[in-house]
Amino acid sequence: MIDHLRRHIPVLDWGRRYNRTALSNDLIAALIVTIMLIPQSLAYAMLAGLPPEAGIYASIAPIILYAIFGTSRALAVGPVAVVSLLTASALGQVADQGSTGYAVAALTLAFLSGALLLAMGVLRLGFLANFLSHPVIAGFIAASGLLIATSQLKHILGVEAHGHTLPQMLGSLFAHLPEIHGLTILIGVSATAFLFWTRTYLKPTLKRLSLPDVFADILTKAGPVAAVVATTLAVWAFDLAGRGVSIVGAVPQSLPPFTTPSLDADLIRLLIVPAILISIIGFVESVSVAQTLAAKKRQRIDPDQELIGLGAANMGAAFSGGFPVTGGFSRSVVNFDAGAQTPAAGAYTAIGLAIAAVALTPLVYYLPNATLAATIIVAVLSLVDLSILQKTWTYARADFVAVATTIVLTLGLGVEIGVGAGVAISVLLHLYKTSHPHVAEVGLVPGTQHFRNIHRHAVITDPGLVTLRVDESLYFVNARFLEDLIQKRVTEGCAIRHVVLMFSAVNEVDFSALESLEAINRRLRDMDVGLHLSEVKGPVMDRLNSSHLIRDLNGQVFLSQYDAWKSLTPASPSDAAA
Amino acid sequence: MIDHLRRHIPVLDWGRRYNRTALSNDLIAALIVTIMLIPQSLAYAMLAGLPPEAGIYASIAPIILYAIFGTSRALAVGPVAVVSLLTASALGQVADQGSTGYAVAALTLAFLSGALLLAMGVLRLGFLANFLSHPVIAGFIAASGLLIATSQLKHILGVEAHGHTLPQMLGSLFAHLPEIHGLTILIGVSATAFLFWTRTYLKPTLKRLSLPDVFADILTKAGPVAAVVATTLAVWAFDLAGRGVSIVGAVPQSLPPFTTPSLDADLIRLLIVPAILISIIGFVESVSVAQTLAAKKRQRIDPDQELIGLGAANMGAAFSGGFPVTGGFSRSVVNFDAGAQTPAAGAYTAIGLAIAAVALTPLVYYLPNATLAATIIVAVLSLVDLSILQKTWTYARADFVAVATTIVLTLGLGVEIGVGAGVAISVLLHLYKTSHPHVAEVGLVPGTQHFRNIHRHAVITDPGLVTLRVDESLYFVNARFLEDLIQKRVTEGCAIRHVVLMFSAVNEVDFSALESLEAINRRLRDMDVGLHLSEVKGPVMDRLNSSHLIRDLNGQVFLSQYDAWKSLTPASPSDAAA
Repeated sequence: MIDHLRRHIPVLDWGRRYNRTALSNDLIAALIVTIMLIPQSLAYAMLAGLPPEAGIYASIAPIILYAIFGTSRALAVGPVAVVSLLTASALGQVADQGSTGYAVAALTLAFLSGALLLAMGVLRLGFLANFLSHPVIAGFIAASGLLIATSQLKHILGVEAHGHTLPQMLGSLFAHLPEIHGLTILIGVSATAFLFWTRTYLKPTLKRLSLPDVFADILTKAGPVAAVVATTLAVWAFDLAGRGVSIVGAVPQSLPPFTTPSLDADLIRLLIVPAILISIIGFVESVSVAQTLAAKKRQRIDPDQELIGLGAANMGAAFSGGFPVTGGFSRSVVNFDAGAQTPAAGAYTAIGLAIAAVALTPLVYYLPNATLAATIIVAVLSLVDLSILQKTWTYARADFVAVATTIVLTLGLGVEIGVGAGVAISVLLHLYKTSHPHVAEVGLVPGTQHFRNIHRHAVITDPGLVTLRVDESLYFVNARFLEDLIQKRVTEGCAIRHVVLMFSAVNEVDFSALESLEAINRRLRDMDVGLHLSEVKGPVMDRLNSSHLIRDLNGQVFLSQYDAWKSLTPASPSDAAA
Repeated sequence: MIDHLRRHIPVLDWGRRYNRTALSNDLIAALIVTIMLIPQSLAYAMLAGLPPEAGIYASIAPIILYAIFGTSRALAVGPVAVVSLLTASALGQVADQGSTGYAVAALTLAFLSGALLLAMGVLRLGFLANFLSHPVIAGFIAASGLLIATSQLKHILGVEAHGHTLPQMLGSLFAHLPEIHGLTILIGVSATAFLFWTRTYLKPTLKRLSLPDVFADILTKAGPVAAVVATTLAVWAFDLAGRGVSIVGAVPQSLPPFTTPSLDADLIRLLIVPAILISIIGFVESVSVAQTLAAKKRQRIDPDQELIGLGAANMGAAFSGGFPVTGGFSRSVVNFDAGAQTPAAGAYTAIGLAIAAVALTPLVYYLPNATLAATIIVAVLSLVDLSILQKTWTYARADFVAVATTIVLTLGLGVEIGVGAGVAISVLLHLYKTSHPHVAEVGLVPGTQHFRNIHRHAVITDPGLVTLRVDESLYFVNARFLEDLIQKRVTEGCAIRHVVLMFSAVNEVDFSALESLEAINRRLRDMDVGLHLSEVKGPVMDRLNSSHLIRDLNGQVFLSQYDAWKSLTPASPSDAAA
């Protein structure tokens, strides 16, 4: 009972062994992460189309709930770029940005994602995430990064623009180009340039100055904070807000409020598909980060328990004024590098953010939106890695088709259609590949008991005997292929008296394949040709024995292909032509 | 060039060798089939909700076109029960039965099916039919048979009733029960009973009277004709039509008219999904009949050319007042048994039906609809074979789930949802199965070079070495499974220094699996554990060599598992614990 509880509420496990060293390590990590998270939270709230405080609220309760239910020691949960984009895309279909309905729909979306993740965790359905192939995820994230960066250009240019696809966004930006605002561009472009510089050049420079690695790292990561402070001071000092620069403005000074998501049936119907997408994509992103970090310390995360942890975190967001969250890559890596030892580090981060929400929000009044947009653009452009196109092109064309489709459709038709088409096309391509399995006609390698492909090796064959090695499990998609193949092979050669199917690589025979084998057996009997099986694996044989096939087989089942050969060919190979 | 033409227009091939024996055999077969087809065509037109002559028209041009382009020597193409049901279901959504729009939509549906079949043939997409697993087809046909039989009860009872699902039909029948018509029931029930009797008892009786087999067979098959003649005479003699028995009535005396399907965009949008369904289901039914018959004569049919043949036949139906057609089981078997030698038999049948359309239609004026309903009911109830439920239950639960879902949803929600859900669920179940592949931990069988499952055999193992034999191709659905499994196994045993993946049953490694292997490699390196591969197949190795994996591998690739064992374990097994 206790073990069972510990498994599902991991805090009971590591909490018992918590000591002073872990405490101080966790506190230091929490401080660093908190400073980094403040601008990031505001920025992702803006990306999701929500007021800035929503980003901070979405980082408090979820972190604590994940610390209780999650299994990763280093994962930091909160708003992340791709999920914020998905949120904006989903909410844009049900309400206008800035309306009450929009904020309520964000709660509902977090609630639905939480409920789905919890349900998947309880039902142990984590494997569903596997339907997203790596190329589809990579293509989707690259395309999302481009979409996100483009969506932020309006803040840099100081214009109004809308749209959820690349053509829409670019069209809208061009239409509003005459309204661009010089001061905003100045801030936006300098912030972007500064952030790119810190990211690309600061660290090597600091290292050349012989600063310790970890210190160089922290200074580099503090780039966004510096940009925030500098541009906020500039706006305040020169009254740039009065000259038309758009700023964050008044953010309520408060702890996260208690909120209740709307459970209106119409709203749920509109949001359920985006919620499924957010849950699965968030889960995939989070699990891959968590696994990478856990491996570094020879720890293990439990994907089904992760679903529970992320589900609880999203539920927390739904009831505390947030929006959908997941485990983020950059914040988790910072947390890990800063030495976080247990999920308690997350809880301390939450306390830090709560203090910020109560005490520090007046400080961001003059923060220009262009700076937030710059932090988003610089963060997401690192996600845009189109080398996946080249890599899959070299490795396997089917994977390339899946990536290219995902990227093109995500950019052109939006995130939901893009990822949906990516999943559909990878499944179809996989089924297509297995629908034409490799089947080798084999013969005996002289002087051995081995059988090899007759087209690749000098082997002994017999005109009366055809042996086919099937290199794939047999199931409905390829069952008929085998029927056609055998029919073709047998109608070609009139001397054929026996067909042997060598099943060494057949891991499964489903009911369709069973019926195909029965049909093959019937047709071969009509042609007066025997059908035999060899090297059938134990589990496959067990199943075939529960059918009529073996009883009605117009031939035998041989343990080894060599037994089949000995039994079905004339005594000496030289007689074979007779 | 000539060879190419012969392949795509098979008539050029067999037409050259046509002789007098073939002619007389084909003529006899055609006469028998024609007699059988007259009532059947009228009945299936009624089932599709179309006027009776449409059934005869749909049997003329299609037969001739299939004879030119099809590859089966014995297949008889025309209206069949399941496709007629699909037609009625599709047309019911766009127009009212009996309206001009309904008949025009039938032409459009035939045109779309023809175009789809031709396109699939030209693009060689016949494999798409494989996505319908055998259990899904069997479940769908059984459920369709039940739906069809139920839909005909109204003609037997002489009431009005509507609906496209079992609950709708039964509800409608019950609502109209007070209106049942005694004389109609009398005709309907006696015709049904007579037909069941001829089907079940007549043939054995005739055989006991020492009649030749083929004669007994023809007499039995003529049962529907006898029922038609007897009930028509009864209606005429006793003026039953004047007493409320519903009859076929006036059928125009004419050759098939030239018609043009409507190509209205809205209509096409409404009919495209049913047309896809009709094409694929019709193709599957037709090909399985054709293959069965071809095998009996050691002939072969070409599935891609069959698509062309069926496509041309449906085009013919669209332009000659018909509706969607395909190769039917019963008519093809009669044709085959009657000795049809070439597709010319089909052409003669077409001539026979054309004569019937011009000369014999007045004879069916008094034919009661109840008799046609009886022939349909008796024909389709032979399709209702629910033993597939029991068979799949015994053989494999996943197949059972697919059948049961298909049957329940076809009956409860209609044919389109039923078969769609069947396809979706079989694909998902297949992916689920391969998402948890069998992975055996293996050890050395003493005194041999063979490696076997450590849980099934007494084998030698080494605490520092874990060897996992993966019994499935690695692709995106199961890539992460392997990551988790290895992570779990390695975090369990602290003495582990090497992991060997034995790839003897791995037929493919897609890009996702490659990235998983790279992740496994990185994580194992972080834990200071080596990753090795053994017995990698040639094509898989070629592909892996085009990636970074092999270069970055924290270990070696061994040709055989025994090489790996010799190289990675201490010299003698007794040292292993050291």
